[in-house]
Amino acid sequence: MDGATVSPMPEAPLAMMEIEKTPPRSPSNHDMPPPPDEKRYDDDDDRVWDCGAWFEYILVVVVSSILLIAASVLTIFWVIYYRRGFNMDDPKLQFNLHPVLMVGGYITLSGFSILLYRICRCCSHLIVKLCHTFFHACSIPCIVIGFLAVWDSHNQTQTPNFYSLHSWLGCITMGLFALQFVLGFFSFLILLCCENATYKFRSTMVPIHASFGVATFMLAVATAVTGLTQKAHFELGESYQQTIEEGIIINSIGVVLTGLGIIIPFAVRRSNSPANCKVYVTERI
Amino acid sequence: MDGATVSPMPEAPLAMMEIEKTPPRSPSNHDMPPPPDEKRYDDDDDRVWDCGAWFEYILVVVVSSILLIAASVLTIFWVIYYRRGFNMDDPKLQFNLHPVLMVGGYITLSGFSILLYRICRCCSHLIVKLCHTFFHACSIPCIVIGFLAVWDSHNQTQTPNFYSLHSWLGCITMGLFALQFVLGFFSFLILLCCENATYKFRSTMVPIHASFGVATFMLAVATAVTGLTQKAHFELGESYQQTIEEGIIINSIGVVLTGLGIIIPFAVRRSNSPANCKVYVTERI
Repeated sequence: MDGATVSPMPEAPLAMMEIEKTPPRSPSNHDMPPPPDEKRYDDDDDRVWDCGAWFEYILVVVVSSILLIAASVLTIFWVIYYRRGFNMDDPKLQFNLHPVLMVGGYITLSGFSILLYRICRCCSHLIVKLCHTFFHACSIPCIVIGFLAVWDSHNQTQTPNFYSLHSWLGCITMGLFALQFVLGFFSFLILLCCENATYKFRSTMVPIHASFGVATFMLAVATAVTGLTQKAHFELGESYQQTIEEGIIINSIGVVLTGLGIIIPFAVRRSNSPANCKVYVTERI
Repeated sequence: MDGATVSPMPEAPLAMMEIEKTPPRSPSNHDMPPPPDEKRYDDDDDRVWDCGAWFEYILVVVVSSILLIAASVLTIFWVIYYRRGFNMDDPKLQFNLHPVLMVGGYITLSGFSILLYRICRCCSHLIVKLCHTFFHACSIPCIVIGFLAVWDSHNQTQTPNFYSLHSWLGCITMGLFALQFVLGFFSFLILLCCENATYKFRSTMVPIHASFGVATFMLAVATAVTGLTQKAHFELGESYQQTIEEGIIINSIGVVLTGLGIIIPFAVRRSNSPANCKVYVTERI
């Protein structure tokens, strides 16, 4: 093997990861190996999961998980410590549900759902799918209650809705999220009832669903950072410019969210199939 | 060929695109073809550039280009039509250089630089590299003048610097951009003087440079949308809530930028090598 054509940082065989489960009738169709003149990083199985790759894999997973949890923890801390927590009778405190539930639903739960789908390559594909759906399903009530909280709070304080960049991005994100959930649920769970007949359609849907999933996550991050900036200017006003504690906390949440917007698309582009899981990966293809 | 294992939307052989130029001593080392049991979408060369793939390729390139130009055009229009253009003697009008140069430098020029590197697979690799460097080099004066414009304007109006989420993200983005440029210039142009000896190092650097390049672009988008939100609240105040014309323009710039933050990472993940360019791609590997 020519080491000179191999990178120590193998790229993700994303295509492999995104191929939908093979119909039972053709579990091992290998009649056409790829042309030999197109050598890729990920072809070198003996190097894909060497020490460096394992280190990178663990680093990406650990950092992603820490950032996903940190986003929600920091938001809850900010709201409780600096914004006086939650109270449904006070429109201002009712509003506080909005950042917590939106970050919790859109970012933490959706982020773990995306990450989990990519990490757990050794588990049964159906279980991973169900967990992926479950995490996304859990984020739906968060998003709905988060949206209603701000809607109701705005109406009670006679603040207009849908005028800001934050709200525009939020609407696009919610629409894309709903579409993704419905199409994903229909394509990858319901259509499994006629596994063979729907294989081609499901295969077609996989890269579309994956691409739009990452896009929705990026949109959620963009929405969140504009929302944080807006809130900081509304609530802190001039004092935001004095680098006060609350401003630092808000900025830190924004930095964590942006870090997630970078690491999650990066994580899902990398190969997550350890060599000893090859049997499952092959089965899945 | 088993059509059932092929998606009509082939995934990008990103690894292939990212492999650094082979040292001249081994231009056609094909002794180890990829194992036949790992069939990928992109292995089916006869389908990779079918009608649907071409349509998608053209759509992505055209939409990306339109959005990249629209971001700068909309920003210039906003600044000249609603913010009274530029004047270095007035700190408020001096500030106006900031959004125009930052969007022009970070987003439009860097975006085209990334896109170009991926589109022009039929051109000489060195020419593509030089163009990629040239576009990035052009964005440096934009970023430096854009930064100095806001720094000087803030100092003249006694507005504090580096307190907001926008400025924090901006600092991280500038640092990453500078690091990327210096490392990229050194690794992929200067080290070409000892092509064979540096091949392994350059190969190692390619995926790192590509990943951090996209990350820098995402950071730039996040910085820009927070900046726009901040500016809208500062300049429009209460009237922003009345959905006035300027507010709509600002929001539209934000939506265009977020669209770019989604489509550019998507574009670079896709295969951009038309079948008739295979000779060049193979040469490059």
